[in-house]
Amino acid sequence: VTTSLAEDLTRLVGDPAQVNDGESARRLHGDPYVGIERASLPDAVVYPTTTAEVSAIVAYAAQRSIAVTAYGAGTSAEGMTIPREGGITLNLTRLETIEVRPESLQATVGAGVTRSALNRAAGEHGLQFPVDPGADATLGGMTATNASGTTAVRYGAMRQNVLELEVVLADGTTVRTGSRTVKTSAGYNLTHLFVGSEGTLGVICSVTVRLYGIPEHVIAARAAFATLEAASACATALIAAGVSVQRVELLDAGTLAAMNAYKGLDVPLVPHLFLELAGTRESAEAELGEAREIAEASGVRGWETATAHAERRRLWEARHEVLFAMEHAHPGATCKGTDTCVPLGELPGAIAHSRRVMEEAGFPAYIIGHVGDGNYHAMFMVDPADGAQMARQKAAEAEIVHDCLARHGTSTGETGVGISKMGHVAAEHADLLPLMRAVKTMLDPSGILNPGKIFEP
Amino acid sequence: VTTSLAEDLTRLVGDPAQVNDGESARRLHGDPYVGIERASLPDAVVYPTTTAEVSAIVAYAAQRSIAVTAYGAGTSAEGMTIPREGGITLNLTRLETIEVRPESLQATVGAGVTRSALNRAAGEHGLQFPVDPGADATLGGMTATNASGTTAVRYGAMRQNVLELEVVLADGTTVRTGSRTVKTSAGYNLTHLFVGSEGTLGVICSVTVRLYGIPEHVIAARAAFATLEAASACATALIAAGVSVQRVELLDAGTLAAMNAYKGLDVPLVPHLFLELAGTRESAEAELGEAREIAEASGVRGWETATAHAERRRLWEARHEVLFAMEHAHPGATCKGTDTCVPLGELPGAIAHSRRVMEEAGFPAYIIGHVGDGNYHAMFMVDPADGAQMARQKAAEAEIVHDCLARHGTSTGETGVGISKMGHVAAEHADLLPLMRAVKTMLDPSGILNPGKIFEP
Repeated sequence: VTTSLAEDLTRLVGDPAQVNDGESARRLHGDPYVGIERASLPDAVVYPTTTAEVSAIVAYAAQRSIAVTAYGAGTSAEGMTIPREGGITLNLTRLETIEVRPESLQATVGAGVTRSALNRAAGEHGLQFPVDPGADATLGGMTATNASGTTAVRYGAMRQNVLELEVVLADGTTVRTGSRTVKTSAGYNLTHLFVGSEGTLGVICSVTVRLYGIPEHVIAARAAFATLEAASACATALIAAGVSVQRVELLDAGTLAAMNAYKGLDVPLVPHLFLELAGTRESAEAELGEAREIAEASGVRGWETATAHAERRRLWEARHEVLFAMEHAHPGATCKGTDTCVPLGELPGAIAHSRRVMEEAGFPAYIIGHVGDGNYHAMFMVDPADGAQMARQKAAEAEIVHDCLARHGTSTGETGVGISKMGHVAAEHADLLPLMRAVKTMLDPSGILNPGKIFEP
Repeated sequence: VTTSLAEDLTRLVGDPAQVNDGESARRLHGDPYVGIERASLPDAVVYPTTTAEVSAIVAYAAQRSIAVTAYGAGTSAEGMTIPREGGITLNLTRLETIEVRPESLQATVGAGVTRSALNRAAGEHGLQFPVDPGADATLGGMTATNASGTTAVRYGAMRQNVLELEVVLADGTTVRTGSRTVKTSAGYNLTHLFVGSEGTLGVICSVTVRLYGIPEHVIAARAAFATLEAASACATALIAAGVSVQRVELLDAGTLAAMNAYKGLDVPLVPHLFLELAGTRESAEAELGEAREIAEASGVRGWETATAHAERRRLWEARHEVLFAMEHAHPGATCKGTDTCVPLGELPGAIAHSRRVMEEAGFPAYIIGHVGDGNYHAMFMVDPADGAQMARQKAAEAEIVHDCLARHGTSTGETGVGISKMGHVAAEHADLLPLMRAVKTMLDPSGILNPGKIFEP
């Protein structure tokens, strides 16, 4: 007798409610990211509730050479979770245990725990997990892509915040990497090989992360500049001076116009830095004073601060919803952004170059960025159905990435490679590709883990 | 005709002055760390001046299966540079280029550049490289062991500060990993696989690191406590509150007695935290005020601050020379320290346990540590010639490490594995050892790079 994949999976996890090979569940886990490729659907979706179940499923898949794709909140911007070879999609959202150890400033969570759920649990102890990519992603997904976002300038990316991992390897074996300490030099650093490996080297089931005290006092400030270049130069001056900003975001005039319209704000339509400073009241105000001095020296034209919670929240909510604002301003269009990141000294030049390329290609030059890290996004509004426009976008993006790499930058600062940035990574790390392939072969000899991502096999 | 190793090496590097197979040079590069093993000497020492020369030497060694050991300042505490299989020792101190890019807050340096040389070059731009393991190690060596030290609580270990590496692989190929940006998600993170690999996976020839502004105002404080446990609990409270200390060091009464005697100080003989706060005058004073409040709440018995440069320098110089002070207090004895690191909440318990073990084994319970990171050193004063004492030390150390691992800690927070901690790492990462061995085989199939380190082959 032959059994179906769904029957086999049900046998492994015990409960038929944990397996779904219906059309709608498969579509939900196979929806393509716009512009990448046509949908590839998994043959079945399974919802394991323990690491042991993940292990059993991966061991089963290994024996039969079935592709296995890990899936969290589905918020990847680069097509990481598209099951290009079908097979099994592991929906990990039921790995949802949260253990907060406040006295050690850390938490161990299941891969399916979302950022907001972790922050609710940590908040009960006056603690926070500050890494903030915008989307309410899962900790497993954030780890697998080395996510970061607006607060990386102070707290670092996932790489700086992951201490220990529980990983199911391609043969179903479970290992624990790292330790629950902020430092370790005990042998090869496998933890940070899995961080950013996008589900291609192992399935991350549990993550131990650092937590931080919630600052008692937070001040938001917005600083207006005559040019994007002046604003980005001010950001680098703030970092150089060691001002302890916890966010420093660049927004251009066009983005602000879209944001004002979408959120009912009235931010003046010139390039801005949005800043956030935090600490005790005394230290935050001391840092604010220094930030203001540096902004003055950088030719700031306007300076507004907000300490009231509601006011701050309104400003940063607007920043977080900027993609929706852009799409709202361009009905029918979709946003396709670069994720280039350059050395700080190269930022003003890189941004000026990106603007020029976007304008010459006939796109509004929306540019936003986590500029304290040199990371910025050139945001193209495109109609995926317009082939000629998509070709122009692709050429302009390639030109921006080429310029960034010439400045010793990287083609992806935080969103990862997935499918859509494979070409860029091949250009960025041509000499490393053989080594990356050797790592993949070592850890996943049959190539079952999230095949067709990061680089061509 | 057959040629000698020295003749072959001379042919590769061109200049006979770059090769030395004399007894004294060989001894200088083979001196054993006390208590580890008898000296193993290299067959020849070569002093390459470029990455291309390193590449040629490694390719030559690969063809003949000759062991290659990278050597920097020779300050390893764990025997990393002992050439257990003889062969070629690569003295990298002539890889000494320094390129500071102040506008990007980074520098690219040859592996042989020392921490002090880099700080001199960075200092001309008002910048510093703050990672400070005490010894004036080379950047290559610090990278290869993921060194850290007193300032890691603020600036992180090498892992958090290395952006890009140039590495010669085991077949002589040269690759560049990472990019000159503070963030990247472009494929597998090979940079941080080489960081901490102790010369066993490749020869690091060039390192790009982050730099930081030299704070305009620094305040040192020393806080006295009734017990070691109270002092360590205060350190964890400071970190939990997010006080921006740049050093927080624990010293016990015995260590202070040795230090007072050695340096002519008069620090009261009770457990202390030495703190350093830095920033603008306003922000450093704000942080100091908060630190003092937390110390009061933790039962501090005495509190002294120093802002004058000479006074601060004297205090930290004493901290840096603490090993010499201990050896001075125990003529003929040598210091052998653990490098255990635990989650912050476990620190008071771990320290109490270590003290008890040391006292029961008949040793003075010297304990110092970078307690803001949970990293502490139980310092045994031993006579390497006294076999019974060495056996007692070994048993006590094993007991301390066992307790640390039960607390989800690590057997080495910063000094690395080398030869002397191989047993501990085998206990700590039993499930990972097959993977670590696979990584080694993948990158160094003939096992020529620094053989016999980190784990048994």
